[in-house]
Amino acid sequence: FDTSPQAVRLYLLYNHWLSKVLLYFFILLDLSLAIFEEPAVFSLPIWATMLVELLCLLAFTIRLVHYAKVIPRDKFWKDPKNICIIVTLMLTLVDMIIYGALKATNCYGVRWSRVLRPLLLINVTEGRQLRRAFRSIRNALPQIFYVFLLFMFSVLIFSLMALKLLGKRGLKTIDGAPYFTNYLEIVFDLYVLVTTANSPDVMMPAYNASFVFAIFFIVYILINTYIFMSVFLAVVYNNYKKYLKEEVRQLVRAKRHKMARAFAVLQEQREEGGELVVTQANWNQVVRLVRPDISNAHRELLWSVSDDKNQGSIGKVAFVQLADLLNIEVITLKSRPHPLHSLCPAFYLSAPSRLLCRIVQHRAFVIVYDLIILVNAVFIGLDEENPMIANSEWVFLALYLLEILLKLYVFEPRAFFSRHSFWNWFDTIIVISALIATIVNSAMKSSGGYTSRQILDIVFILRVLRLIRVVDSIQRFRAIINTLIRIGPMILTFGQLIIVVYYVFAMLGMELFKGKVKFFEDPNDPAKAYCGNPLLKDTAFAQLNYCKNNFNNVVSSFILLLELTVVNQWHVLSSGFATVTHISARIFFVLFHILVVIVIINIFVAFVLEAFFVEYSVDKSDLQTSLERKIEEL
Amino acid sequence: FDTSPQAVRLYLLYNHWLSKVLLYFFILLDLSLAIFEEPAVFSLPIWATMLVELLCLLAFTIRLVHYAKVIPRDKFWKDPKNICIIVTLMLTLVDMIIYGALKATNCYGVRWSRVLRPLLLINVTEGRQLRRAFRSIRNALPQIFYVFLLFMFSVLIFSLMALKLLGKRGLKTIDGAPYFTNYLEIVFDLYVLVTTANSPDVMMPAYNASFVFAIFFIVYILINTYIFMSVFLAVVYNNYKKYLKEEVRQLVRAKRHKMARAFAVLQEQREEGGELVVTQANWNQVVRLVRPDISNAHRELLWSVSDDKNQGSIGKVAFVQLADLLNIEVITLKSRPHPLHSLCPAFYLSAPSRLLCRIVQHRAFVIVYDLIILVNAVFIGLDEENPMIANSEWVFLALYLLEILLKLYVFEPRAFFSRHSFWNWFDTIIVISALIATIVNSAMKSSGGYTSRQILDIVFILRVLRLIRVVDSIQRFRAIINTLIRIGPMILTFGQLIIVVYYVFAMLGMELFKGKVKFFEDPNDPAKAYCGNPLLKDTAFAQLNYCKNNFNNVVSSFILLLELTVVNQWHVLSSGFATVTHISARIFFVLFHILVVIVIINIFVAFVLEAFFVEYSVDKSDLQTSLERKIEEL
Repeated sequence: FDTSPQAVRLYLLYNHWLSKVLLYFFILLDLSLAIFEEPAVFSLPIWATMLVELLCLLAFTIRLVHYAKVIPRDKFWKDPKNICIIVTLMLTLVDMIIYGALKATNCYGVRWSRVLRPLLLINVTEGRQLRRAFRSIRNALPQIFYVFLLFMFSVLIFSLMALKLLGKRGLKTIDGAPYFTNYLEIVFDLYVLVTTANSPDVMMPAYNASFVFAIFFIVYILINTYIFMSVFLAVVYNNYKKYLKEEVRQLVRAKRHKMARAFAVLQEQREEGGELVVTQANWNQVVRLVRPDISNAHRELLWSVSDDKNQGSIGKVAFVQLADLLNIEVITLKSRPHPLHSLCPAFYLSAPSRLLCRIVQHRAFVIVYDLIILVNAVFIGLDEENPMIANSEWVFLALYLLEILLKLYVFEPRAFFSRHSFWNWFDTIIVISALIATIVNSAMKSSGGYTSRQILDIVFILRVLRLIRVVDSIQRFRAIINTLIRIGPMILTFGQLIIVVYYVFAMLGMELFKGKVKFFEDPNDPAKAYCGNPLLKDTAFAQLNYCKNNFNNVVSSFILLLELTVVNQWHVLSSGFATVTHISARIFFVLFHILVVIVIINIFVAFVLEAFFVEYSVDKSDLQTSLERKIEEL
Repeated sequence: FDTSPQAVRLYLLYNHWLSKVLLYFFILLDLSLAIFEEPAVFSLPIWATMLVELLCLLAFTIRLVHYAKVIPRDKFWKDPKNICIIVTLMLTLVDMIIYGALKATNCYGVRWSRVLRPLLLINVTEGRQLRRAFRSIRNALPQIFYVFLLFMFSVLIFSLMALKLLGKRGLKTIDGAPYFTNYLEIVFDLYVLVTTANSPDVMMPAYNASFVFAIFFIVYILINTYIFMSVFLAVVYNNYKKYLKEEVRQLVRAKRHKMARAFAVLQEQREEGGELVVTQANWNQVVRLVRPDISNAHRELLWSVSDDKNQGSIGKVAFVQLADLLNIEVITLKSRPHPLHSLCPAFYLSAPSRLLCRIVQHRAFVIVYDLIILVNAVFIGLDEENPMIANSEWVFLALYLLEILLKLYVFEPRAFFSRHSFWNWFDTIIVISALIATIVNSAMKSSGGYTSRQILDIVFILRVLRLIRVVDSIQRFRAIINTLIRIGPMILTFGQLIIVVYYVFAMLGMELFKGKVKFFEDPNDPAKAYCGNPLLKDTAFAQLNYCKNNFNNVVSSFILLLELTVVNQWHVLSSGFATVTHISARIFFVLFHILVVIVIINIFVAFVLEAFFVEYSVDKSDLQTSLERKIEEL
């Protein structure tokens, strides 16, 4: 690394929060262009979207060049993520030129490079977690592949058996079509049965003929749905654990290595032949540079943990721990006196005021407010047209506001609104927003008699959300919810992963199926009954009124893909799109199922399982224990 | 324990395999009475089933008395499983008397004690595995219960929000019914959505009105279907692991304790002040008594492992290992010469014969037969009415037979049919049965022109099963299949668990819903369209032709419960039964879903996961290693 002041300044600029926010803004802008490009939710002219995209490309290029300046040249070119970004940018540019040329000459063009956009999200320097998730998928693929082959072999064998057993019996499906006579159709039907989406229906014609045939389906479901799907989860989970462990081990090794190098820079020899040490002054300077937000008291605490024997300097082993020490969260609870206490102590310490404090801190206060919440729940459930019910809302709002004010009177406001008091924040925001929304709503109603449906919806949502608070007063629930809140950030990584996969499939789906299935707002339009496509007449797709599940813009595509992820009725959806295009369109849907449901959802489950197990078996590290001991000593 | 010869003889009789088989026979007989009792598959008069049941009760009583004689009196009365059996037997007797009396006076009676029958299966001495499974469920219940409460709270809150947001918009479902106006209906619909069974349908009316409402459903599915269901799995799995570990630890401790007591009986002091030991003679006698099937060579091998220093006697530590040593499976592969080799060596060792052996053992031989199997698969897929295809079957049969004969020529027959050569057994049985079935079929066809559909079905199944063999020649597949075969016995325990729960629900369901929904074989019967119950007219249940999914006998009940376990369309099934009885019938189905899908299926998944992880991280124990070392030394 170059350690000249200029290089360090460049490095700091690269890692500045503002440049990171800008980068994510441009990525988001680039991805959200899909909303304005054909097929669009809000249509914009091509030159406008092209211009914005060029701007995004420019921003990415600048960021990349900046990165190339920061790190050594050979490292830059060895890193696959940089190569990937460069290739993506080039391909996008080429595609834009071709597409622009085709459009200028009024030819049909496909913006195929849109599929590549999510690659930028994966390959930026900040996407470490996301890249790790993708790596863990890639590493699990070979094993999943072999299980998948065996699973498909089993499906094919069962289909052959079904063809031989049921094909010649002249059975009819509920639509009167011949039952189990075409091998490929059987394979598809039995694949759908593995996802349980056509569960009793596919069996009914055979079962109605004789209950012996039910045995065939029971054995099939047992082997393919229960055993194979569990094996998939086992394989994914096992790989996830294995590679996660490996990655963590590598990270720890890299951290140690870097800390050792930092020690080599800072070390000095105090006495002849003595061991190499870092003095407290140097150490302080480093910590102040790295974490300027840490208070002096906190820093001294950390030093006293590192320098256990009070020598004024620490050896290599203690220094290397620094990074872990800085990661331990120490909540500095300053027991500040209440501002009212300092302002007018005579009043705040008077007998009635102290009685009030005792009441608010009493267990009964919590119980009374839980009861109020329950009564409120019943009132919400009742008809809000009734004027008594409508007015009761004001009473409840006043009660909730009173609760917050009372708590603020008793507890120190800065402690009440500290970063870790999730429920206090939640409460206050919900109650204040509900108050504002209710006032606005009443004002509009009394002024013009006009009620905005949107504001009313917001009022309702806020009212119901208020009820969630009751959960916090039950110890057991709090434990579960805290675990869920703690795995929240990890779920965000997972959300990015899902968005990347959805985006690619949405772009593909929009090119393949756009405009084939239409939704008509007007309920009297005769074309509404068959989604504007005569091919869909009398299909299950049209009968179930699935017209709005289409690929006509990026928002409906995402919702449709979500429905496919939930799996139920996916065979109806896929058959609908196969009907309006070609039978091979099913491949798109089966691929999506394999990739998203079999691989990614299993990784999600593996990941929630692992997070919960870690929570259950949480052992405090040695460092944390020694830190706690020091705190107790103070 | 009493150690008189008579007591020991009683104990041995109690543990004799024949008395165990008899016990399971009577349990099976007792459980299968449900087939013959009203509502019956094959109706028998009441006195006949009652007589058989009395016989079963008598058998259980004898077994219990026998057990009471074998173990000490205070232990017998302290054991809850004995108390449970006694109470079950008493209650059954009381119920039979009441029911008999009611029937004799032509009153309506309910055989409620049938629900108790599976308790016998759980509480017999041999049901250890099953009891352990139930204990692990019971232990997991408190934790599951709290998560479940939180989950239900979330469903209730979301339902309230749905009522407020969507109830007043005048939306209609696809049947024209008002959409989301009744709170309890919404709760049920959203509970069904958690199981994904009504996935896009429940959302479509709101989504058609505005895509903003889709956000509500997406958030709901994310929280309740994905996160909560994963948390359920995590809680069940975590408890399963924890209690399994605890149980195994207790078992190991009990085994050590018992082995130490056995050592105390057998020990002797060889020299004054020396340590207490067991001599080889005593040890041999014990092993010969406990495992008479072990060969002398095997026993000597075990002794040489225990008596590592060749002292002629072993101490306590080595003796306690005996039980583990006996559990390690040692496959004695005697490299016997081929019988043909000893009969006519001149022929068997001639050049052509040795060439044949080399060919059969060559890799190409396997590949050629894999290709034959693939060609056969294609031929099976083709129409078997074609005479060429029909005759080709004889060619394939001949080829497979030739393969088995060739292998028998090359490999020693006893080694070929050893207990561990799963695939050789599989192959031979399938090919021989296929040969017999095909010959019988052809004989019947040529003699009378009459073809039995059943025999033809068997021929088809055997033909297709033959194809599975191809899996064995791919190394990776073999590893997965071996794991699956190894977890087979554990799946049997799980099967018992499922049967117990299904049996209880089937008995309940039959009492509640028998005869409410009827299936008509005759397709022209007008009542077929509404399952013989006018209340079902125009319901989804009747439209989807689910009439045969009923509780009219124990076989259809089990199949229906299996469909409910698979989950898809369970809301249609439950609504059907609610329509013909009362809305509260849904409770039965929701309870079944909670118990079977949320608890038991998750235990099954936890259990397959654990089995796979154990397979992946299999470490040989020290004992196994030292045994292997000894074998290598020999």
